[in-house]
Amino acid sequence: MSDGTTAHKVVIIGGGFGGLVAAQSLNKTPAEVTLIDRRNFHLFQPLLYQVATGALSPANIASPLRSILKRQKNTHVLLGEVTGFDIPGKAVLLKDGTRVPFDTLIVATGSTHHYFGKADWAERAPGLKTVEDATEVRRRVLSAFERAERTTDPKERARQLTFVVVGGGPTGVEMAGAISELAKYTLRADFRSVDPATARVVLIEGQPKVLGAFHEKLSAKALKALHGMGIEVMLDAHVNAIEPHYVLVQPDDKAVAPVRIDTETVVWAAGVKASPLGQVLADAIGGVTVGRGGHVPVNPDCTVGNRPDIFVIGDMASLPGTNGKPLPGLAPVATQQGEYVAGVIVRRLKGETPKGPFRYFDKGTMATIGRGQAVAESMGFRFSGLLAWLAWLFIHIMYLARFENRMLVLFQWFWNYVTRNRTARLITGERPTGTRGA
Amino acid sequence: MSDGTTAHKVVIIGGGFGGLVAAQSLNKTPAEVTLIDRRNFHLFQPLLYQVATGALSPANIASPLRSILKRQKNTHVLLGEVTGFDIPGKAVLLKDGTRVPFDTLIVATGSTHHYFGKADWAERAPGLKTVEDATEVRRRVLSAFERAERTTDPKERARQLTFVVVGGGPTGVEMAGAISELAKYTLRADFRSVDPATARVVLIEGQPKVLGAFHEKLSAKALKALHGMGIEVMLDAHVNAIEPHYVLVQPDDKAVAPVRIDTETVVWAAGVKASPLGQVLADAIGGVTVGRGGHVPVNPDCTVGNRPDIFVIGDMASLPGTNGKPLPGLAPVATQQGEYVAGVIVRRLKGETPKGPFRYFDKGTMATIGRGQAVAESMGFRFSGLLAWLAWLFIHIMYLARFENRMLVLFQWFWNYVTRNRTARLITGERPTGTRGA
Repeated sequence: MSDGTTAHKVVIIGGGFGGLVAAQSLNKTPAEVTLIDRRNFHLFQPLLYQVATGALSPANIASPLRSILKRQKNTHVLLGEVTGFDIPGKAVLLKDGTRVPFDTLIVATGSTHHYFGKADWAERAPGLKTVEDATEVRRRVLSAFERAERTTDPKERARQLTFVVVGGGPTGVEMAGAISELAKYTLRADFRSVDPATARVVLIEGQPKVLGAFHEKLSAKALKALHGMGIEVMLDAHVNAIEPHYVLVQPDDKAVAPVRIDTETVVWAAGVKASPLGQVLADAIGGVTVGRGGHVPVNPDCTVGNRPDIFVIGDMASLPGTNGKPLPGLAPVATQQGEYVAGVIVRRLKGETPKGPFRYFDKGTMATIGRGQAVAESMGFRFSGLLAWLAWLFIHIMYLARFENRMLVLFQWFWNYVTRNRTARLITGERPTGTRGA
Repeated sequence: MSDGTTAHKVVIIGGGFGGLVAAQSLNKTPAEVTLIDRRNFHLFQPLLYQVATGALSPANIASPLRSILKRQKNTHVLLGEVTGFDIPGKAVLLKDGTRVPFDTLIVATGSTHHYFGKADWAERAPGLKTVEDATEVRRRVLSAFERAERTTDPKERARQLTFVVVGGGPTGVEMAGAISELAKYTLRADFRSVDPATARVVLIEGQPKVLGAFHEKLSAKALKALHGMGIEVMLDAHVNAIEPHYVLVQPDDKAVAPVRIDTETVVWAAGVKASPLGQVLADAIGGVTVGRGGHVPVNPDCTVGNRPDIFVIGDMASLPGTNGKPLPGLAPVATQQGEYVAGVIVRRLKGETPKGPFRYFDKGTMATIGRGQAVAESMGFRFSGLLAWLAWLFIHIMYLARFENRMLVLFQWFWNYVTRNRTARLITGERPTGTRGA
């Protein structure tokens, strides 16, 4: 495809785990890489819940894409929003009218929250996908304690001190655990009228166990740890209303009446769907039907439909693993696909024989519940408790993109561990009257 | 005023330097202290320009008020917005209708930007008073570089790479220096189409010298340092228009035509006025006339009018110093007034003779221009260059409210010094289409 005088143009959309690693894997190759993202930074999403609970600052888990890629001479970062594709003309279309031509295209714009068609829920129950999501959740959680301190009405106080997390996967479990620790330890002595330790944290999960992707035993351990922290876990139950002052939870056993939980703070960690750009791409290519969650079905080499020049990777792609089930929407899958696809492209440029199909190498999964408590499984081994927690800390530190952030996170975790303080607990973002908001 | 059974109620409005120190100085006294603020944190405003230029995160210079005061048993923090006063009834009125009764009142809500009646300017030229101000300035500065990278029009590129700072006091000088360093060093290798080092930074000051409060020699050194960094300094000149794509600067020499500077990014560091609550308080007391900048004239003991029970301190107060000129709006003035007023109250509670009038002990002032360059004067001594810069670093670290923040700032400064990197350069706050903004 390269004619020898003009470099082969690889355009990557999305600077998350998949897109960034694809770009990095194309360093020092003959390809000319353009990485397009709406944001100017790569975000380490697995730690967003720590921003939402005041343990870390957004910048600690976000690294400017230009900074990461500045020494990579064949790569260009473009801040922009992709709105469409000209497939026959081989170009990506940006919102401002720019056409970005490609020889090979990699689409990796990830996933977003899925509220199953309930448009109101997005406002009432923010999730954790962006920096703004995290600072908004932080604002809501901390403001609820403030309102509890202000009121003299015991019913309102109880409502303000009730936090509902919807979804018992890793994000939901981590978020519930972090809110509980915030209330029980960090804020313990902060208030005069309320005892934050009386806060109620409710975790709602539709399946019969939390951490459904983990082994039974680890799910059971996680549940026990959650109970040990005083978190109420409702299994086999679905939220069927999120209203301004309460949620309604319907147990799957329809003989049981819906449970009303009075709360002002709901965090969404339940459903995700592929970024809407997946649908746009499928329509532009034609003959490709996205799945129920908007995922783009890909060929075994991560190409789409009959287009060897277009790849979809990461959370947006739907590809069966060796067990026949679709690969999970996890950072390691995206990362490995990014590396793999870069390898496919380089082989083509060199005229070598194509690589075999993508194989996900599952190094393991882990989730943390709270201080000293985590579960992990790797290569058939299962860990829980302190060992799993230390492994979780180590791995998350190592995967942070930049040395400075590793040091900053490490210091804050250490400090948090020793003092149980979380100093990044700022209520920001809402315009206080009389000052200019941002 | 205390009747022996009910504690004497001291209400402090504002958790800035003055209000916070007043509260801390009343620790372990018989007074019952309530500190009211709209925000849940104390903000170290002198370092906001470092947030605005990506060197620090907001949480590094902000400490939760509850956290600072949590061990101070006689003190209660109230998050709320004061809208008025019932002086005869001795109560503070909050926006939500709450009445907070006081025996003694301390008002310390500081200052805000003064755009001299130009309502449009607030939006076009944000200043640096709040966390939201700083993240907004950061967004604008970084976005301008991104737009410069995108355009192919040399005139637009030049406009995007022009940054105007209005006001040559410490904040303006520090901001101009930081933008220049960001462009010349931090972003040097980040872009492919533009050379950020070609950015133009223009500092506009109405007086014949920058850092007008400093000795002539230091002002001259600061000017030389600014020139050495390539910053254009326009002295004796006033901005008379701030439009969406340019500013007009009128030199005081009216024979010279106004100068048009094409720019998309203007930072306001020129005028401040007292928080509007000063006027509200003066009206409520009666017989008190606020000054032109809304400052409340106070008696030598910081009380207002004929009210021995009402104090105004910090940027909001107007009190002549020993030289007859009003004391400057600086953190040390506010801090010393906070301590002083707490002392006055404690003496009264003990029935001791009143303290003498407030005397400001001027330990000195300093301003930093850039890496290794600062000016400082203290007790008749004047320093500049590296020594002043090291003193600046040391003093600012020491005055940060919490140990954790001292360590985090120190590490980031060290890292910034060694690598010239500033990792907190996130473009946040504007709602990217398709995601929920905050």
